[in-house]
Amino acid sequence: MSGEEAPTQQQQPEQQEKKPDEPPPAAAAAADAPQEERSAAPAAEEKTLSFRALVLTGHGGYDKVKLQVKTQSEPRLQPGEVLVRVKACGLNFGELLGRMGMDEMLPSPPVTMGMEGSGVIEAVGEDVKERKVGDRVIVLSLGGMWQEVVVVSASRTFPMPEQMSFEEGAALSVNYVSAYLMLFEMANVRPGKSVLIHMAAVLSGRVACMIQPHETRVMRRAERITGGVGIAASQLCQTVQDVTVFGTASGSKHETIAQGGVTHLIDYRTKDYVAEIRKISPKGVDIVLDPLGGSDSQKGFSLLKPLGTLVVYGATNSVTGPKKNLLAIAKTWYNQLSLNTLKLMPANKAVCGFYLGHIVNEELVSRTMFKLLELYGQGKIKPHIDSCYHFEEVADAMRRMHERLNIGKVILLPEAKKEEEKPKSDPEPVENVEKTEAAVEEKKEEAAEEVKEEKD
Amino acid sequence: MSGEEAPTQQQQPEQQEKKPDEPPPAAAAAADAPQEERSAAPAAEEKTLSFRALVLTGHGGYDKVKLQVKTQSEPRLQPGEVLVRVKACGLNFGELLGRMGMDEMLPSPPVTMGMEGSGVIEAVGEDVKERKVGDRVIVLSLGGMWQEVVVVSASRTFPMPEQMSFEEGAALSVNYVSAYLMLFEMANVRPGKSVLIHMAAVLSGRVACMIQPHETRVMRRAERITGGVGIAASQLCQTVQDVTVFGTASGSKHETIAQGGVTHLIDYRTKDYVAEIRKISPKGVDIVLDPLGGSDSQKGFSLLKPLGTLVVYGATNSVTGPKKNLLAIAKTWYNQLSLNTLKLMPANKAVCGFYLGHIVNEELVSRTMFKLLELYGQGKIKPHIDSCYHFEEVADAMRRMHERLNIGKVILLPEAKKEEEKPKSDPEPVENVEKTEAAVEEKKEEAAEEVKEEKD
Repeated sequence: MSGEEAPTQQQQPEQQEKKPDEPPPAAAAAADAPQEERSAAPAAEEKTLSFRALVLTGHGGYDKVKLQVKTQSEPRLQPGEVLVRVKACGLNFGELLGRMGMDEMLPSPPVTMGMEGSGVIEAVGEDVKERKVGDRVIVLSLGGMWQEVVVVSASRTFPMPEQMSFEEGAALSVNYVSAYLMLFEMANVRPGKSVLIHMAAVLSGRVACMIQPHETRVMRRAERITGGVGIAASQLCQTVQDVTVFGTASGSKHETIAQGGVTHLIDYRTKDYVAEIRKISPKGVDIVLDPLGGSDSQKGFSLLKPLGTLVVYGATNSVTGPKKNLLAIAKTWYNQLSLNTLKLMPANKAVCGFYLGHIVNEELVSRTMFKLLELYGQGKIKPHIDSCYHFEEVADAMRRMHERLNIGKVILLPEAKKEEEKPKSDPEPVENVEKTEAAVEEKKEEAAEEVKEEKD
Repeated sequence: MSGEEAPTQQQQPEQQEKKPDEPPPAAAAAADAPQEERSAAPAAEEKTLSFRALVLTGHGGYDKVKLQVKTQSEPRLQPGEVLVRVKACGLNFGELLGRMGMDEMLPSPPVTMGMEGSGVIEAVGEDVKERKVGDRVIVLSLGGMWQEVVVVSASRTFPMPEQMSFEEGAALSVNYVSAYLMLFEMANVRPGKSVLIHMAAVLSGRVACMIQPHETRVMRRAERITGGVGIAASQLCQTVQDVTVFGTASGSKHETIAQGGVTHLIDYRTKDYVAEIRKISPKGVDIVLDPLGGSDSQKGFSLLKPLGTLVVYGATNSVTGPKKNLLAIAKTWYNQLSLNTLKLMPANKAVCGFYLGHIVNEELVSRTMFKLLELYGQGKIKPHIDSCYHFEEVADAMRRMHERLNIGKVILLPEAKKEEEKPKSDPEPVENVEKTEAAVEEKKEEAAEEVKEEKD
């Protein structure tokens, strides 16, 4: 069973030889299964299962993620596994990178992406004691969550509190686990510390309509990642006494949305955030969480106090549009922070890299999830949902994130969209249209850049 | 008043224009002082003060540190300052580097080195409330401690518990503050973590006499730093529940001295410590404290578990004998760990540099010292004193450390050696002699290397 055919997230690169866009019949899928499994379930008695799945069919633009309906034999659960009917999935920046072919860890297409989701348990394998059919659960997986049904290890599922919606459940794991591990495992936030969080808050009011053509590049720079880990991190900082949070934010107005926990908010479109922080705290900050990479990592390092820690967890500066931009990648690479230990010593500083996809310590992830559920129960953290898109609208969902229009989490819903249903998202459609026009301009410019670069 | 003339550690590089070996008379020293101070203390009434001091007169071998007797006007204390009669000073690897001209932070000679000591307060300035004349104190300074009397800020002094000897007091600050800040501020040691500490313990039995000529180089590598921060760190790890310490140690026999807190002891002269650790803990360790630098930093980094932390706090691999070895420096530099953030991210690791001399946060240092004094009071930490040398024996003291003969702290005593007094150290004089012969061989070899290198 290959990743895009089977209701499981256990994607193995070597299982990817199937052609895209051709969901095989259940019999063919069953033929892939090991013989010993087959013997106990003769073909005549096999029940089949149909489900919707988003399949990455190649690397490139939005059209590379296709909705497919798969029919195959009902999965036989291994001991410790559960079958979950997925109600909501999270969309993450990592999946945008995956689509563009910028995630080396993702198996080659065809493959189903998706690290997180929520749903209801429909079946449990042997030796599963802590979960039962009907349980509402969060699933944090290594991939393959963007389908209606998944088979996962029960240890990767976490019980949802009653008051938590499926959308919130799908929004909690990746962003909050990342923020928690970076703040408390790597950087050791304690009372009295100061933290710089990029995109800790998002300012209301879209700016696309006000942007002049020559400002497009500035705009692109300013609208890096909205929400996600930044919002989670600033909420988590609030759980520690006396922590000062410097948050950078984009947007033109200063009424904040989802500001949770930010002490000093800096609109880095209009101000130099390094200078602003130095004005308030001349010695700098103790911790910097950096999703941007490139020259921003250098700025973050320079802002650290002695014994301070920079955690780099992304290189979004290298992503400018829906397709790979080689120039932006090269620029980010060229400007990235490079250090040797003899330079680090006199500085008394720490530099960390973080990538959740490589954290395979299940006990640590599990412990962190239960801690987060406790904080949620206490009302100390709450995911901010930007918008929800049905699977058939996945291109719109990805576009929304690419164009940095989202404030908080973008959710994908496996359930089919009803004909009469209104879109659940896009609170400001007029501005979005204008923004999209700006983005089209931007894309043209990028295409020109790429062409130029390739010529060079 | 320049660093080598005045009883103070406040060395300013611009005050170093005095010629070495010519301690000026008190009148000359007084002439340097600002006019407003002079007016209140006419020359006729000035009391003079004589004291012994170790002065670094140039960069090079042991002979560059000279004992001088200085006579000058009695210092007038500024508000917040105290005058301390020094009873014992610590010798640190940093001072060996300083003598060789390998510490960029040290003002140019003539200068008095010494970061730590202990003594008795003889006078207090205005506004000093928490200290009084007669108090026994530890002094942690930025330099200039190697003299009989020092003037320091009262905030840099810490009250000594009754049961603590002056030697212990002089041994507590640099090594234990360094180990504490690295373990608890940078690396965040918590229950259940594992730590690799180089030279965490020292195995008994000197090996010099057993070394064959062709083994000299191996020996040199094996005998990196004995005691100091490693012993302090392993004692401090014991204060946290369920911490596993992997300690590397040199020496030929397996009866350990000062083993405090080491779970797994690896004699890295005879075994590959990376392979040994992997045997016991295939996933590696959470924290590595690395004083060695060069290729050992790379090994340490490779041994880290995900979310693990490497703290590099030295490059002793670049020091092979009493004089600068350009080849060893180049080799350490060439092999040092160089990283960029894009490499750190998928690894989920942290790299820190630590250098106590640059920690200027007095509140942090003070808080740490009081924590350490509390742990000392509870019997949880105890400095291990290797040997004590009078100021006139400073060359022997430095030689002992250079030749890695010390097990624990080497102490310098300002008090003059009595004629009949037996040496307080060198429990194994015969082996030392042999070791010294080996060292002479080594030095010749190094000199040849340097000449060769310069020719190249």
